[in-house]
Amino acid sequence: MPRLPGEFALIERYLAPLTTTAAGAFGLKNDAAVLELPPGERLVVTADSLVAGGHFLPDDPPETIGRKVLRVSLSDLAAMGARPHSYLLAASWPGDLEEAWIAAFCRGLAADQERFGLTLVGGDTTATSGPMTFSLTAFGAVKGSKVLDRASLRPGDDLYVSGTLGDAYLGLKVLRDGIAGLTAQAAGHLADRYRCPEPRLALGQAILEQELAASALDVSDGLAQDLGHLLAASAVGAEVELEAVPVSNAAEQALSLLGEPRQAVLSGGDDYELLFAATQNKRPLIDALSSRLTLPIARIGRVRAEAGLTVVDSERQAVPLESLGWTHF
Amino acid sequence: MPRLPGEFALIERYLAPLTTTAAGAFGLKNDAAVLELPPGERLVVTADSLVAGGHFLPDDPPETIGRKVLRVSLSDLAAMGARPHSYLLAASWPGDLEEAWIAAFCRGLAADQERFGLTLVGGDTTATSGPMTFSLTAFGAVKGSKVLDRASLRPGDDLYVSGTLGDAYLGLKVLRDGIAGLTAQAAGHLADRYRCPEPRLALGQAILEQELAASALDVSDGLAQDLGHLLAASAVGAEVELEAVPVSNAAEQALSLLGEPRQAVLSGGDDYELLFAATQNKRPLIDALSSRLTLPIARIGRVRAEAGLTVVDSERQAVPLESLGWTHF
Repeated sequence: MPRLPGEFALIERYLAPLTTTAAGAFGLKNDAAVLELPPGERLVVTADSLVAGGHFLPDDPPETIGRKVLRVSLSDLAAMGARPHSYLLAASWPGDLEEAWIAAFCRGLAADQERFGLTLVGGDTTATSGPMTFSLTAFGAVKGSKVLDRASLRPGDDLYVSGTLGDAYLGLKVLRDGIAGLTAQAAGHLADRYRCPEPRLALGQAILEQELAASALDVSDGLAQDLGHLLAASAVGAEVELEAVPVSNAAEQALSLLGEPRQAVLSGGDDYELLFAATQNKRPLIDALSSRLTLPIARIGRVRAEAGLTVVDSERQAVPLESLGWTHF
Repeated sequence: MPRLPGEFALIERYLAPLTTTAAGAFGLKNDAAVLELPPGERLVVTADSLVAGGHFLPDDPPETIGRKVLRVSLSDLAAMGARPHSYLLAASWPGDLEEAWIAAFCRGLAADQERFGLTLVGGDTTATSGPMTFSLTAFGAVKGSKVLDRASLRPGDDLYVSGTLGDAYLGLKVLRDGIAGLTAQAAGHLADRYRCPEPRLALGQAILEQELAASALDVSDGLAQDLGHLLAASAVGAEVELEAVPVSNAAEQALSLLGEPRQAVLSGGDDYELLFAATQNKRPLIDALSSRLTLPIARIGRVRAEAGLTVVDSERQAVPLESLGWTHF
């Protein structure tokens, strides 16, 4: 097992300062932290592991790796309509990692803690002979007894997705192999979307508070696959209109250069956009919310009783999906 | 990245059944879980990562690996005086792992869930090209506002440790290289102690409830090192009597065969016994507690104002410590 000098020094120097606002973290000197929520709130918990090579590239900037590790879990909180509260970080670092790398990684965490209003409360650091691995447990809070649950879709519900799809998987292609002919601006946009997803926290909280939808999830394994799980949980199906699926200009440019069809964005991973279903009478409220948040929210199709997911083109012809999406296995 | 067939099938088959008693786990179909505690209780959280080769042996029985992954975190809850509530598991498995391995691993988790009264509420599964890695976040509950904090030792306090020290690191030697001449019974005892530590939950809860001590920790990196951190947090020192340090017959036999001095047990890792400090007037209560729990609790020394840790023999001569203990780096 390789040896990084000073596990405890690293914790004291880089991780303990990330706990400054959390009394229950005991400066990371205790075996565990104590969490307290305001009365009437409930705790939402989620854990995600990110492995170098699978969820981020080993030569990504350490700041964005830190941010992505945090944001992937924040995206899960967003899908539950929760407000970020705190988090635990378990890091498995190669023993030959440079201290400057860890410092930069923690600067990324610090910046996002500030931005999203949460604080480190504990965790663990270990050495690994394998790829760098981070497991983050994020805590969020929801008021009252409402919760966004997945098993409540009904035929006739509209399906919505925030932002744009496909940027991240195309960004990974940019970073891995490059895309010949792509403008630098488009390449930068796509790479940023891969490295630093935007958790749709305000949207998730509004969906819960305004009771716009009973079901939401964050699209992490490709829309086709994630929507498939959502539909299965409610024993329903859906029709998605390909033309309505939101795709950025940069992604359109990249798809065209790669000769990939538009439906490829339904199978890419790492979008971290929110997908949700709402009854048709919510349309004006959802349009208003989109304006207020200055966040595009596209109505991409609707739930139907017949099982299965069908994607149709502008002439309502079924479009073949080459793959049902990204899985980690 | 290697591919294990059916991430979602594995979750549904082996992990979802571990959540049966937890409504807020949504059968692992949601992005996150909702935790609820009885009114007046506070949540204690702790995260630990275990890496194959570092914290368990790749060819350990999968049942005991599952149990150890859970028990290491339960030991942290014990040190906080908390009652186990639930947990999240993030597992990074090699893609060529057999399904039977995962089934056995989950049987180990199920057995310990039953025994310790907690339930899985969520997590994540990923593939890794490196060693198998588990990150477990355990949730516990404490009543009222009391908490065991580390920075409250005072000169004159007695130091106690539960059970026996050194078994686990000697068990690792048994499993890795064998110890020539050791009886099969002793070898089995030591190996079991390495593979399946016993979280001292009843002791931790009693310490908190009876206000026997303000500080406790679980000894995971060797008593010398862990005690050193505890002393530093309170800016005090301690004297430990080597003869008072509890060592099992099996460990004594192993030390003798290896030609290692008794103080080696102060630097071994993986003990997961509780170390705590108490004022001298608590001695009768602690003796009574030891009887009630049928758990040996040894008074191994005392806190003093002078900084640093001194280990003395039966003639109060200082004993050199070869190493300050195990670190993961």
